Amino acid sequence: MEKSIYSKRLATLRQRLKETSMGDCDTAWVIQPENRRYLSGFKAEDPQLTESSGSLLINKARSLLVTDSRYVLEAEKEAIDFEVQILKQGLVEDLPGLIQGMGTKKLGFEENYLTWGLHKGFTEKLKGLSLEIDLVPLNGLVEEMREVKDEEEIKAIEDAADLISEILNKIIARLKPGMTEKEVAWEIEALARHGGAEGLSFPPIVASGSNSALPHAVPTDRKLEMKEPVIIDAGVRLNGYCSDMTRTVFLGDPGADFRVIYRTVRHAQVAALKEVRPSVDSTDLDGMARKVISEAGFGEYFGHGLGHGVGLAVHERPKVGPRTPVKLKKGTVFTVEPGIYIPGKGGVRLEEMVLVEDEGPRILTKNDHIYDL
Amino acid sequence: MEKSIYSKRLATLRQRLKETSMGDCDTAWVIQPENRRYLSGFKAEDPQLTESSGSLLINKARSLLVTDSRYVLEAEKEAIDFEVQILKQGLVEDLPGLIQGMGTKKLGFEENYLTWGLHKGFTEKLKGLSLEIDLVPLNGLVEEMREVKDEEEIKAIEDAADLISEILNKIIARLKPGMTEKEVAWEIEALARHGGAEGLSFPPIVASGSNSALPHAVPTDRKLEMKEPVIIDAGVRLNGYCSDMTRTVFLGDPGADFRVIYRTVRHAQVAALKEVRPSVDSTDLDGMARKVISEAGFGEYFGHGLGHGVGLAVHERPKVGPRTPVKLKKGTVFTVEPGIYIPGKGGVRLEEMVLVEDEGPRILTKNDHIYDL
Repeated sequence: MEKSIYSKRLATLRQRLKETSMGDCDTAWVIQPENRRYLSGFKAEDPQLTESSGSLLINKARSLLVTDSRYVLEAEKEAIDFEVQILKQGLVEDLPGLIQGMGTKKLGFEENYLTWGLHKGFTEKLKGLSLEIDLVPLNGLVEEMREVKDEEEIKAIEDAADLISEILNKIIARLKPGMTEKEVAWEIEALARHGGAEGLSFPPIVASGSNSALPHAVPTDRKLEMKEPVIIDAGVRLNGYCSDMTRTVFLGDPGADFRVIYRTVRHAQVAALKEVRPSVDSTDLDGMARKVISEAGFGEYFGHGLGHGVGLAVHERPKVGPRTPVKLKKGTVFTVEPGIYIPGKGGVRLEEMVLVEDEGPRILTKNDHIYDL
Repeated sequence: MEKSIYSKRLATLRQRLKETSMGDCDTAWVIQPENRRYLSGFKAEDPQLTESSGSLLINKARSLLVTDSRYVLEAEKEAIDFEVQILKQGLVEDLPGLIQGMGTKKLGFEENYLTWGLHKGFTEKLKGLSLEIDLVPLNGLVEEMREVKDEEEIKAIEDAADLISEILNKIIARLKPGMTEKEVAWEIEALARHGGAEGLSFPPIVASGSNSALPHAVPTDRKLEMKEPVIIDAGVRLNGYCSDMTRTVFLGDPGADFRVIYRTVRHAQVAALKEVRPSVDSTDLDGMARKVISEAGFGEYFGHGLGHGVGLAVHERPKVGPRTPVKLKKGTVFTVEPGIYIPGKGGVRLEEMVLVEDEGPRILTKNDHIYDL
């Protein structure tokens, strides 16, 4: 019988837990929703940070999904490689008994997800019970696994990228002066649902005229006008996986200034994209795009990093920016999205999703609206 | 000149910082998005937990909003009572200098939001700089302020409750056999947008037939059928404030069993609602509803708490459940949502939002679809 993708991922996690460099924990406690889904197939989202829908406990012999009565039926259906356990009193109250039953001595936790308060509460609980169990950070163990996508994931991300590419093609063809930013954003959402998505991977950005100078603009009632830039940045979530894509369009002639800005952003993007391959440093890619923008005199107007990984989360490893170098790996999917934003005037951003292959970049987002200005 | 609601809230926070019982911190570091918006008016959301769009630093003399270049224009427009500071290197790198400039000795942080990793990174940074600044938990200081709504907030919540009440009226009138759960969910979302909402306050639950036995069901392609329960649980976010409401409907006669279940849930809800007034213990309310359900023989099928506070977050203080007693306060808004869920068969949940007034409960959600079975 063929193994499920989850049992393969569990095997990889167990292998890594054995490697002494991983912080010497014998059991991984996984509570971050995307990590949890990645390892188990359990799809439930968390209502919010302080309300978890479930935790995984994984050691060399056992894999538990600990949840409460509200989620138990879904858990049993979705996480077939896990024993489902129902919380009776609560996470902090019940977890000690469960890990004791697993023979845990060192429990690895997600240091960039677990709150200081929950960590403290749990540590005190263990102390109160006189249990000699140490908490040690997992140091991004599961996030690192997620950085390299397997075949099933690449297929899912391609589907999500195809859908947003189609949607942006449709939307851009429909744009006309007088439509509001909010109307455009809403049409994107409607097309995503009609296209079968669970939803958008983030609230879409539709920023026209001077609003396009705000990299994270929220759509307003502002009406689109001729000759102004309109930045559209959107993505869908399809079968759990995200896409993320940006186009900047003009209704009519952009004028000389925006022509130069657009061309500069596109050149910066292409300069970075063509260098994508395994082992390249993320900071070098960012640097290539930044150099093009700086040399054109717009250096101070590109205030964010070049891109970020995309997968179960719309922002995940690797961060592709000017500071921390990460070597690109085969199978990583990330965005390349340079931008120039002139306060009070407007901005241009272009964003593609790219997959790192042995032969170089494979661009996953595709539509007709890249201009040769 | 009339003071902004934010300057009033800042004054309250400063007053509480002075009270020695609050953990003796001189400066509050506020990073949780709803707390941040509540105190400053800064509306930006965080892309995700590890990517903050801004922090507030508040002591007796100064109030800073620390953000990065992407958000600075919005910050200056929205947070008029704050000095906006742009991060140059990053939060952990820049924060020490900023709090040193404020004369901070004890920095209060949000222990249920700050991750263990960020707390550690920041503590080590301070140590590396030989700064004698202690980090102390704020112990839910701002969350506690948010538990009692001011007039502006009650107005905003009423609007959000009115909108979801209207939407459920419309949706329920349109239900017919053959529609899928997903279609119903999508129509709720469309009506929310057309009604002016920023969006939904959570992904809507539309659970029919046996799916209704899952309190947190995700809408599926299952088609609605006659005589089965359909649980619809949805809310909108309007001007930042959330609503949350549940109805259970039947297309045609529910049959004898569901008639009893529905009646029991409704009796449990009414029993709790009529006891809502200041100073009542939250656990007593939960107990009143639970008693009705247990006495009817369904005790084991009501696996969640009675309700939760609603405001800027759809789930906030107080938690109204069987365990931790909280005295209800005038001005608190929370849900009363008992349910009975029979695995494999189906369930019924009814949910209202209620405001605690001196005279008793004021129910904020209203529509026509409460049955007298």
